[in-house]
Amino acid sequence: MKPADLLDRVRVVLCRPSHPGNIGAAARAMKNMGIARLALVTPLRFPDAEADARAAGADDVLAAARVCGNLDEALAGSTLAVALSARPRDLGPQPRSVREAVGELLAAAAQGEVALVFGNETTGLSNDELQRCHAAVTIPSNPEFSSLNLGAAVQVLCYELRMGAYAGVPPAADPATPFASPPATHDEIEGFYAHLEAVMTETGFYNHAQPGRLLPKLRRLFGRSRLEKDEINILRGILAATRQKTGHGR
Amino acid sequence: MKPADLLDRVRVVLCRPSHPGNIGAAARAMKNMGIARLALVTPLRFPDAEADARAAGADDVLAAARVCGNLDEALAGSTLAVALSARPRDLGPQPRSVREAVGELLAAAAQGEVALVFGNETTGLSNDELQRCHAAVTIPSNPEFSSLNLGAAVQVLCYELRMGAYAGVPPAADPATPFASPPATHDEIEGFYAHLEAVMTETGFYNHAQPGRLLPKLRRLFGRSRLEKDEINILRGILAATRQKTGHGR
Repeated sequence: MKPADLLDRVRVVLCRPSHPGNIGAAARAMKNMGIARLALVTPLRFPDAEADARAAGADDVLAAARVCGNLDEALAGSTLAVALSARPRDLGPQPRSVREAVGELLAAAAQGEVALVFGNETTGLSNDELQRCHAAVTIPSNPEFSSLNLGAAVQVLCYELRMGAYAGVPPAADPATPFASPPATHDEIEGFYAHLEAVMTETGFYNHAQPGRLLPKLRRLFGRSRLEKDEINILRGILAATRQKTGHGR
Repeated sequence: MKPADLLDRVRVVLCRPSHPGNIGAAARAMKNMGIARLALVTPLRFPDAEADARAAGADDVLAAARVCGNLDEALAGSTLAVALSARPRDLGPQPRSVREAVGELLAAAAQGEVALVFGNETTGLSNDELQRCHAAVTIPSNPEFSSLNLGAAVQVLCYELRMGAYAGVPPAADPATPFASPPATHDEIEGFYAHLEAVMTETGFYNHAQPGRLLPKLRRLFGRSRLEKDEINILRGILAATRQKTGHGR
């Protein structure tokens, strides 16, 4: 199954969101990652201008959002519901990190519909909601400040799913590096080193009688950058201009 | 080095943020992931009640935020500056996905200070800002809707760094380098570029009136090699000797 088709099988469910701005932020984060289906369980305010503003162009996700009376309605038709949970609970599934779970989530998406379930900004998921989910994930975080913004949490989960779905898919052809030129050949590079050594000798910076480690260090520096033809021309141009100025020809 | 100590070496730099809410969201996202140091380059409004509200308890991060007049000031003392870039640019380093880059980022944090650099919400990073960074990363996203909210982007990058730091990502095995020295800082590297530009101007190789793409190309070349302190000293020694010979002082 193509990555985009896997992501089409994923829905995001926000339970009792209080702030319409977070609904908009979630819609934007979803669309950024190629996930389109949003369900809202008894949102406090929706639709709302603040949601539209924060969606910043993901209006289609908001327009298509389903508003549901309870979590069961939002999960209808899904085969796996995964709760985001900030902490282990007495009740409900025990959480794993989202990265550990992403393979299983995508495998489930290849078979059926998957839901990512998020709780209220302040109170999280109720025990009743959590028990309706089949698995739980956490976002590893600073134990002293662990509560992510709702939109930011949606962003991280959707990002992990996209990374997982496209892993192993060869990235779109590497954008041609602007003004990259072909790699310089060995003899071009050696020609540059000889030119550099001559100029350093003429300016008195390099002394053949006491070479130290200057030349090996310069070879190490330029070696790391894997010089290109065009760059050799620039470097030799700088050297030639220096020599003309110092009266040593080019 | 302990994961928490690695994350202490990371700073987040927001260039010209327009919306104070995003500054607060960034602070919260950072603190959630155990990253504390925030620098703001000419923010439109800061401090601001909206930033405080969205920080939702990360007031300490906001209170300690440094407000800087330009990007160089924000990057002072860092040895690796990584730009978040939505798209390939003509100028500046070419981006890799953040997950591909996280090992290198943490390896750099084990050696020195690392900066994550984010652009303005609407216009992103300017070419000038981008060229001051040594590497660029992208967040893989829906090509038809690729622009993440600023706070959400900070969340994803900080999350990846935390996951990497605590996963014990093996620091990119630096092949045992004979005579390697510590990485040069941002200000040392900028000092070299200024020195080089002055010498190229004096020898007539570089003409301010017709700059072409000479300086960006040189930044690209030296940026790839990730200059070390010792190498800066060598390069500036070469330049100083040249200037003495051409009668321009050092």
